[in-house]
Amino acid sequence: MAAWAERLSGVRGVLLDISGVLYDSGTGGGAAIAGSVEAVARLKRSPLKVRFCTNESQKSRRELVGVLQRLGFDISEGEVTAPAPATCQILKERGLRPHLLIHEGVRSEFDDIDMSNPNCVVIADAGEGFSYQNMNRAFQVLMELENPVLISLGKGRYYKETSGLMLDVGGYMKALEYACGIEAEVVGKPSPEFFRSALQAIGVEAHQAIMIGDDIVGDVGGAQQCGMRALQVRTGKFRPGDEHHPEVRADGYVDNLAEAVDLLLQHMDK
Amino acid sequence: MAAWAERLSGVRGVLLDISGVLYDSGTGGGAAIAGSVEAVARLKRSPLKVRFCTNESQKSRRELVGVLQRLGFDISEGEVTAPAPATCQILKERGLRPHLLIHEGVRSEFDDIDMSNPNCVVIADAGEGFSYQNMNRAFQVLMELENPVLISLGKGRYYKETSGLMLDVGGYMKALEYACGIEAEVVGKPSPEFFRSALQAIGVEAHQAIMIGDDIVGDVGGAQQCGMRALQVRTGKFRPGDEHHPEVRADGYVDNLAEAVDLLLQHMDK
Repeated sequence: MAAWAERLSGVRGVLLDISGVLYDSGTGGGAAIAGSVEAVARLKRSPLKVRFCTNESQKSRRELVGVLQRLGFDISEGEVTAPAPATCQILKERGLRPHLLIHEGVRSEFDDIDMSNPNCVVIADAGEGFSYQNMNRAFQVLMELENPVLISLGKGRYYKETSGLMLDVGGYMKALEYACGIEAEVVGKPSPEFFRSALQAIGVEAHQAIMIGDDIVGDVGGAQQCGMRALQVRTGKFRPGDEHHPEVRADGYVDNLAEAVDLLLQHMDK
Repeated sequence: MAAWAERLSGVRGVLLDISGVLYDSGTGGGAAIAGSVEAVARLKRSPLKVRFCTNESQKSRRELVGVLQRLGFDISEGEVTAPAPATCQILKERGLRPHLLIHEGVRSEFDDIDMSNPNCVVIADAGEGFSYQNMNRAFQVLMELENPVLISLGKGRYYKETSGLMLDVGGYMKALEYACGIEAEVVGKPSPEFFRSALQAIGVEAHQAIMIGDDIVGDVGGAQQCGMRALQVRTGKFRPGDEHHPEVRADGYVDNLAEAVDLLLQHMDK
């Protein structure tokens, strides 16, 4: 693998995943990952452009930012690209009226959306909301549609809470795809449109940007397919096997966000 | 399509699916499908061998047979091939100790099985038992195993209750496969071993047997891949689109079991 200087040359913008990179979510608000609060602060004092690019869909952006601020992070709502607002834009553009299978915490993001007489299903990381009854209702709505549309906020396999690994929306998306014989549209990482909208928000081209995440497929693979570089942190849902993933190889592996930021600031074009 | 006489020549044994063919399950025991009670009786008076081959895994065989007898069917426990007893045999042969994610109604089938310190997960149509908490627990057990083994009792997409279409185990199997990056072993239709064990029970070769079911993939496709012929009934979960399925074409489509039995008895080799 090339030296860090080469791998990081010309980087102007940084996309940061949140869960597993900044903090581990969990009861009581979760816990900041050691060194991440300071790492974000240093990054924001540098000339590098920063954008938070998350698949978090259990909380509204407002609530998420509130949690992070309480943990000490320098972050504001306007700096976050998240699937729920992106989905609302798609629903409006296409005249779609969703049946929602989502977490209560994110419901307020859909306040402006017409939900009468649903002609699509929107699924997100619903946690305990993924009851059999709720899944069956979403399934029945889809089966009654002539052209069933299923939109999934992300397709993560699992994430890490302070209490352990937790099933993410991806499996439930696969369950509905299989039961209905359809394919979901994914809003969020790893969809290229989603990365591009985050880059657009900071005015940085893909080849000038680097993604830092804990998910080898959703963060690293997705960003690379979009023309970006990507580092995987060994925090959050990282597992040692990720460094030998059959399909995805990060541009670098770092112990945590603090190490990633050290490297970026050290090798940044002055 | 050839004439019925040709399509049905040489049939000596009949495998009958239960749910959607004999009856629609549902609250209060469900309801017999019109004509099916008499059709089973006629079939059993004929020279044809009969075996019930079901993926039912919400009830023990004893309970299932009890329900059917109350609806008027001539059926006994020894005539039913079902996934739970077949799974118990596999667990014992391979020294597997399961974590069970199954319906309470079928738990008694596993009374003889060692469940200490689980080294595999067995999943069945758990209905309301498919809570997020239970799915997450099964996921965590699998992720802690070095060589995770997931056994699924069937892989049906959905079935029909008197109240409407209901999600079956298949979607939940897909969810765990995706989240854990593994492939499940399916016990039940459409697995060839399962059909073969039903045929063995009545001493009939695959080419001499015909399957009658409402599931174009699980019943019809599975039986055909096993060398049998198969009819699809237009009851239960049948949907008109099934007659133009991209991969599976039944040897015949009939309105219900009664019509299937009429045809069989009419064209049977005397």
